[in-house]
Amino acid sequence: MNYQPILDRIHGALKPVIGQGKVATYIPELASVSPDHFGMAVVSLDGTVASVGDADVPFSIQSISKLFALTLAFQREGDSLWARVGREPSGNPFNSLVQLERESGIPRNPFINAGALVVTDILVSRNTNAEIATANFLGRLCGRSNVTYDPRVAQSERQTSSRNAAMAHFMKSFGNLNNKVGEVLDAYCRTCAISMSATDLARAVAFLANRGTNPWSGEKVLDASSAKRMSALMLTCGTYDAAGDFAYRVGLPAKSGVGGGIVAILPGECGICVWSPALEETGNSYAGSLALEMFTTLTGKSIF
Amino acid sequence: MNYQPILDRIHGALKPVIGQGKVATYIPELASVSPDHFGMAVVSLDGTVASVGDADVPFSIQSISKLFALTLAFQREGDSLWARVGREPSGNPFNSLVQLERESGIPRNPFINAGALVVTDILVSRNTNAEIATANFLGRLCGRSNVTYDPRVAQSERQTSSRNAAMAHFMKSFGNLNNKVGEVLDAYCRTCAISMSATDLARAVAFLANRGTNPWSGEKVLDASSAKRMSALMLTCGTYDAAGDFAYRVGLPAKSGVGGGIVAILPGECGICVWSPALEETGNSYAGSLALEMFTTLTGKSIF
Amino acid sequence: MNYQPILDRIHGALKPVIGQGKVATYIPELASVSPDHFGMAVVSLDGTVASVGDADVPFSIQSISKLFALTLAFQREGDSLWARVGREPSGNPFNSLVQLERESGIPRNPFINAGALVVTDILVSRNTNAEIATANFLGRLCGRSNVTYDPRVAQSERQTSSRNAAMAHFMKSFGNLNNKVGEVLDAYCRTCAISMSATDLARAVAFLANRGTNPWSGEKVLDASSAKRMSALMLTCGTYDAAGDFAYRVGLPAKSGVGGGIVAILPGECGICVWSPALEETGNSYAGSLALEMFTTLTGKSIF
Amino acid sequence: MNYQPILDRIHGALKPVIGQGKVATYIPELASVSPDHFGMAVVSLDGTVASVGDADVPFSIQSISKLFALTLAFQREGDSLWARVGREPSGNPFNSLVQLERESGIPRNPFINAGALVVTDILVSRNTNAEIATANFLGRLCGRSNVTYDPRVAQSERQTSSRNAAMAHFMKSFGNLNNKVGEVLDAYCRTCAISMSATDLARAVAFLANRGTNPWSGEKVLDASSAKRMSALMLTCGTYDAAGDFAYRVGLPAKSGVGGGIVAILPGECGICVWSPALEETGNSYAGSLALEMFTTLTGKSIF
Repeated sequence: MNYQPILDRIHGALKPVIGQGKVATYIPELASVSPDHFGMAVVSLDGTVASVGDADVPFSIQSISKLFALTLAFQREGDSLWARVGREPSGNPFNSLVQLERESGIPRNPFINAGALVVTDILVSRNTNAEIATANFLGRLCGRSNVTYDPRVAQSERQTSSRNAAMAHFMKSFGNLNNKVGEVLDAYCRTCAISMSATDLARAVAFLANRGTNPWSGEKVLDASSAKRMSALMLTCGTYDAAGDFAYRVGLPAKSGVGGGIVAILPGECGICVWSPALEETGNSYAGSLALEMFTTLTGKSIF
Repeated sequence: MNYQPILDRIHGALKPVIGQGKVATYIPELASVSPDHFGMAVVSLDGTVASVGDADVPFSIQSISKLFALTLAFQREGDSLWARVGREPSGNPFNSLVQLERESGIPRNPFINAGALVVTDILVSRNTNAEIATANFLGRLCGRSNVTYDPRVAQSERQTSSRNAAMAHFMKSFGNLNNKVGEVLDAYCRTCAISMSATDLARAVAFLANRGTNPWSGEKVLDASSAKRMSALMLTCGTYDAAGDFAYRVGLPAKSGVGGGIVAILPGECGICVWSPALEETGNSYAGSLALEMFTTLTGKSIF
Repeated sequence: MNYQPILDRIHGALKPVIGQGKVATYIPELASVSPDHFGMAVVSLDGTVASVGDADVPFSIQSISKLFALTLAFQREGDSLWARVGREPSGNPFNSLVQLERESGIPRNPFINAGALVVTDILVSRNTNAEIATANFLGRLCGRSNVTYDPRVAQSERQTSSRNAAMAHFMKSFGNLNNKVGEVLDAYCRTCAISMSATDLARAVAFLANRGTNPWSGEKVLDASSAKRMSALMLTCGTYDAAGDFAYRVGLPAKSGVGGGIVAILPGECGICVWSPALEETGNSYAGSLALEMFTTLTGKSIF
Repeated sequence: MNYQPILDRIHGALKPVIGQGKVATYIPELASVSPDHFGMAVVSLDGTVASVGDADVPFSIQSISKLFALTLAFQREGDSLWARVGREPSGNPFNSLVQLERESGIPRNPFINAGALVVTDILVSRNTNAEIATANFLGRLCGRSNVTYDPRVAQSERQTSSRNAAMAHFMKSFGNLNNKVGEVLDAYCRTCAISMSATDLARAVAFLANRGTNPWSGEKVLDASSAKRMSALMLTCGTYDAAGDFAYRVGLPAKSGVGGGIVAILPGECGICVWSPALEETGNSYAGSLALEMFTTLTGKSIF
């Protein structure tokens, strides 16, 4: 399917609303990004790329990194990982400590901050530099050698990470964090600060649309069953506390970040990424969510 | 695809675990059902039926009715329904009042009890006998004229409905219930007490696998987009607080009931129903969940 | 001690603020009471009465009744009562269901609505008309034969009691309510609707300042130890979620009602009641709280 | 009043139960204390000392220090302190983060850990060594020059302070902590590790029974009104989540610590301290609570 006309149509239709919503301000460096960016890319499994707008402008991937850090940790730990983090939607705002207290330090899923801190802890135990391991993994997935993090964003995030520090110490009090809190937070903030373009992210996520195999290198990243399961996690937990609404409106497995990016997949067809920094109250990109909703409406394709 | 050999294989493999778990005991009439039942049916969109075990034994559909009551209410109310009930996973056990308090009487989704009470309230406002409206709707969907509820189960449930009464009064205190609590509870308990076989339920749910159109009568039950969205709701909210885990393991939109039934769909292919009364702690049928997990593993088909 | 000059001074000082705050509106009949009332009475154990303003105007005692219903139930049940209701401050707004859910249907204390419903349930089990039993008990305590409830207020309250109904059904689901919810609510609403003046309430509460013995009749209402313990409960739980602040500012055991009344005691000295219908956000009378704070400041007396 | 015979009687009566309960184990150094200690001291305002058992054996005062740190901070900040910490009972176990999240980083009262961390933060802002400031203050109150903390206990506590670190970071995320989390935790753990005997603590707390004036030196520690208010806080919040029950059973303003100590006052009469390391589930000394209950029963004196 040729997705270019569809992306053009989405781009045209959304122009009036780009910039609506609020750029994340709790990380000072992110607050300086213009809300008027909009880029979208679809990379089909045959390698065809369709894209519009700022699809090749790098942005801070933020929580989108949680998907790839999890994949990397899962490659190494397998199902034993699920002893330390759940697979259920959180039913609470993404930085809540309440759930963590009620469930004895086991985060509900790997896509909320607490869960991603546990995933990071696993990677820190296995790598000298967990953030570089994840960046290199992303590089291999999209075929770039230079994927890296923005140190200013990482530092800015690290200086405002009191709430993540609280969660990390809290999980440590339950015995669910093995490394030093400071080291885990360093790695976590740097991983969130990885910078990539929509086109590269669409390429990187395509293995999940391809039954777990990297379509560009042929490398088996996950077995088919695990890839499907990762997609299920994205659908139920990938868009903060709006996962139900997102599944209802869009119907694609997706993972969003407060930098304004959202990656998604259409199984058997393509990897998708949209970026627009102004956010809804849920923390998901406002124009980005609409773009994905239009995408499934116009193509008539979703997983349902 | 011929599903009969697959069902036979599932039936054989699960025989040792049928009966493991616990039959729901909080409704006395349900507690008397033998845990050793197991039945499963798959009805392809061309009408082919594959089935095993007790697939034609009627059982109490319980919360499976929530899917059909919602469809009926949605036919009449459309999107305005979402002003009274959310679309997010609950992140809490299925009968929790905490969430309801925090969110001002708006239940998180229509598949938890509180949400289904709101749906029932809508149907009570529009029908003399809401439970008969839903039973007749189920009859039209599966091509039977005699779908009805078991009055003993309804009465047994009504006598132990203190917690549902609490939720109904609580929502009324927030202005989210229009009819008398007693009438809504009567209708709710009778609707839960509808009795059907797995084969009939697989037939009834097939319209959701057929883009919203009843494959047997050609009637358009929902438009294609709404049917997909209903499936998305099933995936994210259909199996109580285990929806994330269910999506991860099974990967099919599904709705379960404490009677031990689970309906599911494979879009474009078939309606599915499995029944086995012994439940996991999550309230879902133990053997039933395993059967669906085997089904997607053996067929290699899921929505992801 | 001659309290009259002190009451006069309080009355004078508070005139500018009487009427500040909000009259309770959730019970329509209460909403029609003028916010400009203010009355206060101090009845010394020797029978001397000091009073100002509307001290002899009857008002709806509302939750103040909880203190007397509890005393009556405790007379009959003794310490076994504490198996069904706790003695800890609630730490939550006074009508919260969250606590009740977390603690399996055992209300935190007898002065929140849930706890008072349990106390009412006990009285309903022992009396044909629980509300008349409590009214008669109040009559004996203050030496009046005609203490009764206002049926219009009772009916108004009953019609807006969805939240209390929710709590009652919820406790019934945990097995902590023996009578029919409707009967308990009827008795509860009528008991809250008992109408008395500040002077009569100051007289009625004086037994708690007198080591449990009714100073007017000599009747032993409670033994000395139980009377002290009842006072301790008033101090820690008597003024909704503001008990800590109230103890800090006022330092007297007290029980408030949303009708704007507050009863208090100075052990060994006197019973006190103040009434002014406009409430703080905490549900306690605004001018009434200030009056009691002035009372302990001007007399230099509190329990601490 | 001569309290010696009463203490002797209490000591005799409690001998069979001393050691029942559990010594706090989450701080390794505390876990090594024998559960069989029991000491009690009453210091009358005329200087008379009554004591039994291990009344002169120093123990780790732990949360008892919160009372004195608060007094010191209140001396300097006055009522502005209440903008950063509340005065209400917590209604939750003493180390809960839930309340903190719901109330935007403002702890419910200064006697739960979170509140004490805020108090410590205030002292750290005003002193080079907050822990020494509090120790010296305690020394002045009891007339000793050598009050100090046990560095092994402080270090042991600091190494197991993940949960306190979580709360400190969490409050910092709400802007309610001005100093570095590490510095605040250091000072907090050292302050908790102050070591004193029951006799010295009974002497130190006596100013609260003496309208705020140190009875030994004549120094005005707090004005009379503030001293009464501090006592009110002890009564409503001083014994963790058991304050209601403690007020009911004992009826004295008190502050307990997990080291097994409890200080209390009888206004106008005496300061009291009891120590026995084995704790109830609520975190209060088991034999200590019983001793105070016997004390009010035998003397017939309480604040009610």
